[in-house]
Amino acid sequence: MNDALFTANNTWMLVATAMVFIMHLGFASLEAGFVQSKNTVNILFKNSMIIAIGLVTYYIAGFNLMYPGMNEGGFFGFAGFGLSVPEGAAAAIEYADGGYTYWTDFIFQGMFAATAATIVSGAVAERMKLNSFLLFATIFVGISYPITGMWKWGAGWLDAAGFYDFAGSTLVHAVGGWAALIAIVLLGPRNGKYTANGIKPIPGHSMPFAALGVFLLWFGWFGFNGGSVLSADPMLVSLVFVTTSLSAATGAIGAFITSNILFKTHDLSMVLNGILGGLVGITAGADLMSPGEAMIIGFIAGVIIPFSVVFFDKLKLDDPVGATSVHLMCGLWGTLAVGIFGEKAGIGQLWTQLYGTLAIGVFTSIFAFVVLFAIKKTMGLRVSAEAEERGLDVSEHDMRAYGEQQELERIASY
Amino acid sequence: MNDALFTANNTWMLVATAMVFIMHLGFASLEAGFVQSKNTVNILFKNSMIIAIGLVTYYIAGFNLMYPGMNEGGFFGFAGFGLSVPEGAAAAIEYADGGYTYWTDFIFQGMFAATAATIVSGAVAERMKLNSFLLFATIFVGISYPITGMWKWGAGWLDAAGFYDFAGSTLVHAVGGWAALIAIVLLGPRNGKYTANGIKPIPGHSMPFAALGVFLLWFGWFGFNGGSVLSADPMLVSLVFVTTSLSAATGAIGAFITSNILFKTHDLSMVLNGILGGLVGITAGADLMSPGEAMIIGFIAGVIIPFSVVFFDKLKLDDPVGATSVHLMCGLWGTLAVGIFGEKAGIGQLWTQLYGTLAIGVFTSIFAFVVLFAIKKTMGLRVSAEAEERGLDVSEHDMRAYGEQQELERIASY
Amino acid sequence: MNDALFTANNTWMLVATAMVFIMHLGFASLEAGFVQSKNTVNILFKNSMIIAIGLVTYYIAGFNLMYPGMNEGGFFGFAGFGLSVPEGAAAAIEYADGGYTYWTDFIFQGMFAATAATIVSGAVAERMKLNSFLLFATIFVGISYPITGMWKWGAGWLDAAGFYDFAGSTLVHAVGGWAALIAIVLLGPRNGKYTANGIKPIPGHSMPFAALGVFLLWFGWFGFNGGSVLSADPMLVSLVFVTTSLSAATGAIGAFITSNILFKTHDLSMVLNGILGGLVGITAGADLMSPGEAMIIGFIAGVIIPFSVVFFDKLKLDDPVGATSVHLMCGLWGTLAVGIFGEKAGIGQLWTQLYGTLAIGVFTSIFAFVVLFAIKKTMGLRVSAEAEERGLDVSEHDMRAYGEQQELERIASY
Repeated sequence: MNDALFTANNTWMLVATAMVFIMHLGFASLEAGFVQSKNTVNILFKNSMIIAIGLVTYYIAGFNLMYPGMNEGGFFGFAGFGLSVPEGAAAAIEYADGGYTYWTDFIFQGMFAATAATIVSGAVAERMKLNSFLLFATIFVGISYPITGMWKWGAGWLDAAGFYDFAGSTLVHAVGGWAALIAIVLLGPRNGKYTANGIKPIPGHSMPFAALGVFLLWFGWFGFNGGSVLSADPMLVSLVFVTTSLSAATGAIGAFITSNILFKTHDLSMVLNGILGGLVGITAGADLMSPGEAMIIGFIAGVIIPFSVVFFDKLKLDDPVGATSVHLMCGLWGTLAVGIFGEKAGIGQLWTQLYGTLAIGVFTSIFAFVVLFAIKKTMGLRVSAEAEERGLDVSEHDMRAYGEQQELERIASY
Repeated sequence: MNDALFTANNTWMLVATAMVFIMHLGFASLEAGFVQSKNTVNILFKNSMIIAIGLVTYYIAGFNLMYPGMNEGGFFGFAGFGLSVPEGAAAAIEYADGGYTYWTDFIFQGMFAATAATIVSGAVAERMKLNSFLLFATIFVGISYPITGMWKWGAGWLDAAGFYDFAGSTLVHAVGGWAALIAIVLLGPRNGKYTANGIKPIPGHSMPFAALGVFLLWFGWFGFNGGSVLSADPMLVSLVFVTTSLSAATGAIGAFITSNILFKTHDLSMVLNGILGGLVGITAGADLMSPGEAMIIGFIAGVIIPFSVVFFDKLKLDDPVGATSVHLMCGLWGTLAVGIFGEKAGIGQLWTQLYGTLAIGVFTSIFAFVVLFAIKKTMGLRVSAEAEERGLDVSEHDMRAYGEQQELERIASY
Repeated sequence: MNDALFTANNTWMLVATAMVFIMHLGFASLEAGFVQSKNTVNILFKNSMIIAIGLVTYYIAGFNLMYPGMNEGGFFGFAGFGLSVPEGAAAAIEYADGGYTYWTDFIFQGMFAATAATIVSGAVAERMKLNSFLLFATIFVGISYPITGMWKWGAGWLDAAGFYDFAGSTLVHAVGGWAALIAIVLLGPRNGKYTANGIKPIPGHSMPFAALGVFLLWFGWFGFNGGSVLSADPMLVSLVFVTTSLSAATGAIGAFITSNILFKTHDLSMVLNGILGGLVGITAGADLMSPGEAMIIGFIAGVIIPFSVVFFDKLKLDDPVGATSVHLMCGLWGTLAVGIFGEKAGIGQLWTQLYGTLAIGVFTSIFAFVVLFAIKKTMGLRVSAEAEERGLDVSEHDMRAYGEQQELERIASY
C-alpha cells in the first residue's frame, strides 16, 4: 500500500463521512416538513440533540462495543471506554488494509450510529415527551445499536453465519424501524387520528421541507453506501453509486404508479417515501447487484410504500412520517433481496438473510420494549392531552417555529 | 496510469456526480420559491419525478445514444439498450485514459441528462398538465438531449467541425432553454398575467427557498464544471473552480447594477438569476479563460438577465422563474464567448460557435415543437382555467404544500 | 512528491473549498431564520452580494495583501493587484509542498475571506442601510481581514511570535465578531427592543431555516477546518474531523444544560448557537487536541453561549442572531484554549495567544470604527424609523420574502 493510494482512500472515506452527516439534516428537514407547525421546534430540537448525543455515546462506549476486535463469531464484546489510536502513520496504514485511519473509522461509524435513533424520532413525533425520548435515544444508540451492529460488522456470530448486509438495510434501517414500531405501540396514536368516523389525515406543515429532506438524504446515501466500500476502490464505489441511484429512481416510479392506482391521485409524500424506500432497499446489497437488479429492487420497494402506509394505518399504528414503512418494511425487503438477486442469490442465502434480520429484530424489539416500558412506568412517555393539543413547541420549548405565528393567528381570529 | 492516480481521478468524478445531483435539489428549491404556494407541490413532484425518469431513460437508451462510440463525425448513433461494463479493472483503467470507470461515466452523465428537462419544468410552471409534462420530459431527456449531446461530446459532426462547449452552455442549458421557449409559446401565459392595464407581477411565494436553490446550484456547479474536466487534473480542475466562482460573482454584480438602473431598486430575484447567468455563461469555456476573462463573461451575463426578463415579458412570453433568460440567453452568450475570449478566441471559432449553437437550437426547437404539438392535440398541454385558479396542488395532487393552509385560510375568511 | 499524491491532496482542497462555500448558504439560512419575515429579503440579498464582493475584492487585492510572500515577520505587505499563476505543472507541485495548485490556494482562501463579513451581516440585521453595509463589507473584506490574516497565516509578526490559530478562531471568527460589536454599538438597538418595561423578545420568523443553516455550517466546517490542514494528510485531516465533530456535539450539550438551568426550558436557538460555539471554539486548535480535550473545549463554548447572550442583552447591545456570542466570545475562548489544552498548552503559549488575539482585536475594532463612523457621518448607517417599522424588504427592496404575504395580511385584517 503506497502513501498516495492510502491518501485517496482516506479522503474518500472522510468525504463520505460528511455526506452521512448531511443525512441528519435530511431527516430533520423531512420530519419537520411532515409534522404540524406546532410541533416543528420539537422535531428540530430532537434531531439536533440526537447527533450530539450519538457522537458522544459512540465515543464513550459505542465504538468499542461495535468493533471490539477480539470476539470473532461472538454475541458481545467490549474493548474499553474512549478511543485509543494506534501510534504512527505506518500503523494507521496497516490498520484498515490501507483504507483509512483509526480516526476516520471512528467518525464514519459514529455518523452512522445516530441515524438509527433519528428514525425513531419521526415515528414518535407530536406526542412523546422530549426528555423521555432523549433518554431512550441515548440508551438505544449507546448500547443496542452497537451490539447488533457487532453481530455482523464487528465480525460477530451473524457474520460467521454468512449473513450479508452491505451498508445496513437491517443493521441501521430495520433496527431503527423496529424501535420505532415498539415505540408507536407503547405510545398510542395522536389524539383525533383514528376516530369513529374513520382515519383523519393530519397533513404535514411544509412539503418543501419534506422534499428538501429527501433530496438531502439521497445525497447523503452516496456517502452511506459509497463509504461502506471502506475504501475508494474505483469499480466498487462507482457501481454502488449506480445501483443506489437507480434503485432510488425506480422507488419513485414504483410509488408513483402504485399510489396512482390506490389513491387515484399524484401523491407527493408517497413519491418522496418511494425514493427513500428504494434507497433503504438497495442498501443491503448495493455492491452485489447489476443495474437492472437494482432497478427491480427499488421498484418493489416503491410499490411496498403505499401498501405499508395503509397497512399500518389500518392497524391504528400512527406513524406521522412513515418511518416504519420506509425503514422497517423496505429494510426487511432489502435484506431478503440479497438472497433473491445478485451475486449471492440462493435459497441458503435467503434463509440466512431471513433468520439474521429476524434475530436482530427480536433483540432490538425486546431491548426497545424493556427500556421504553421502564420509562413509561417512571418518567412517562407521552405528553398530556392538553400539551398535545397546544403543540409540543409551546409545551416543551416555550417557543414557536414561526415567530410571528402567534401574532398572525391573533389577527386572523378577530 | 497507476492505481493511486486512477483512484484519485475516479473519486473526484464521483464526488462531482453527487454535486451535480444536488443541482436537482437546487432547481426544485429555486422553482418552488418562485411559484405561488398553490403550485408548490406540483413543482416538487415534477422535479422529484424528472430525476427518476431521467436516470432510467438514460440507462435504457440515452447513454448509448449520446456515446455510441462508433460514429465519429456523425449525426446519429446508437450502441444498444442498457449498459455493458467492460470486464475487469485493467479494462476500466484503460477505458477513460485513467479518468474513471464505466460506471462512473454512466452515472456522471446520467445526472447531467435530467437537468435539461428540469429547466423546462420551471418555465411551464403553474399551468401545464402534470402527465403531459412528464411524457414530454421522458421523450426529451431520452431522445433529443442525447442526440444533440452526441454531436459534440459523443465525437459527432460538431466536434469534428471544431465546435467547443466545455460543460454545456449549449448542450445542456441552451437545449433546455429552447425547449422551455417552445413550450411557453405553445402553452400561453398564466391567466391574468398580461392584462389590458399592463403586466401583473405574480411574485414567488418564498424567497428563502429561491435563494437556497441558487446557492445549492452554485455548489453543484463545482461538480458540473469541475467534473467536466473528466479527471482530477489539479491545474485544470482548480482553474475551473476559479473561473466558475468569479463568473458567478460578477454575474451577481452585473445584475445588481443593471437592475438598480432599470428598476431603481435592489431586486433579489435579479441578483439570484444574475448568479445563475454567470454560471451558465462560463460553462462553455470554464477551462479556457483567465480569471479576468471569466469575470467579464460573468458580468455581461449578469447584465443580460434584467434586459432579457423585460424582453420576454414585452413579448408576453410568460416564464415564472426566468429560465429562458438564464439558460437560453446566457447559454447562447457563453457559447459565443468561447470565440471572443480565452485560448480559442478568433473569428473562425466565433463563427463555428454560432452555427454550432444554432444548429443544436434548430434541432431542439423542432423536436420540442413536434412532441409538444402532438401532446397538445391529444392529451392537451394546459389545465383548465378553473384548475389554474385553484392551483395545481389541489387540482392535480389533492393536497396543499402547507398542510394547515386550508385551515388558516378558512379562519382568515371569517 | 508524486503526481498521484499531489492529485489526491489538491482534490481534497477543492472539495473543502466547495464545503466552505456552503457555509455562506449556512449563514444566509441561519440569519434569515433568526430575523423577522419583513427583513428576510434584505438578509438574503446581503449574503448573496457578500460572497460576490468577497471573491472579487480578494481577486483584486486581498489575496496579495494576505499572502504577500515577501514579508516574514512583518506588519504589512502587498504583492500587487490580480493573480499571477506560476507557469507549468512542476511549479505548481513545488508551489505548496505538493498540497495544491496556485488556483486552489486562491479559491480556498477567497471562500474564507467573505465569511468574516457575513458574521457582521447577522448582527446588524433589521436596521442597517443596505448600501452602507455593502460599502463597509467591501472595505472590511478587501483590506482589514487580509492585513490581520497576514500577521499569522502570511508569515507575519504574530506567526514569528509563536501565535497559533489553526483555522481561524481569531483570524476569521473573532475578527468578524469585533467588527459586529463595533457596528452594533454605532447602530444602536432595534426600536422597541429595550423598553422601560424590560427586554422585548423579537423571535426569528423561521426556526426550520435557522436549523438548516446550523447543520449546513457544521457540514461546511469539515472543509473549513479539514481544509486548513492544507493537504489531504490522512492522520491530520481525520483527527480534525473527529475534534471538530465532538466539539460541536458537546457545544450542543453544554448549551442544552446551561439554558435549561438558566431559562427552565429547552431553548432551540441556544442549542443551535451552542453547536456553532463548539465549532468556533475548536477552530484554533482542531489539529492539536485529543478527542477528550475537544469535548471539553466544545462543552465550555456551549456553556458560554447562554451567558453571553444574556450579557450582551443586559448591556443593551442588540444582536438579532447572537453573532457576537458565537463568533467573538467563542472565538476568544478557542484561541485561548490552545494555551490551556493540547500539544501546545503552556503558560507562555497562553500569554502569546492572549496578546495575539487582543492585538488583532484592537486593530480590527479601530479599523471597523473608523470606516463605520465615516459612513455614519456621510451616507448614514441606519434606516429611518418608519422604514424599520415597515421592514427593510419593502423599504430597500420593494418586495416581500413571501409573495402572498401582503394579500394574506389584507384578508386577515378584515
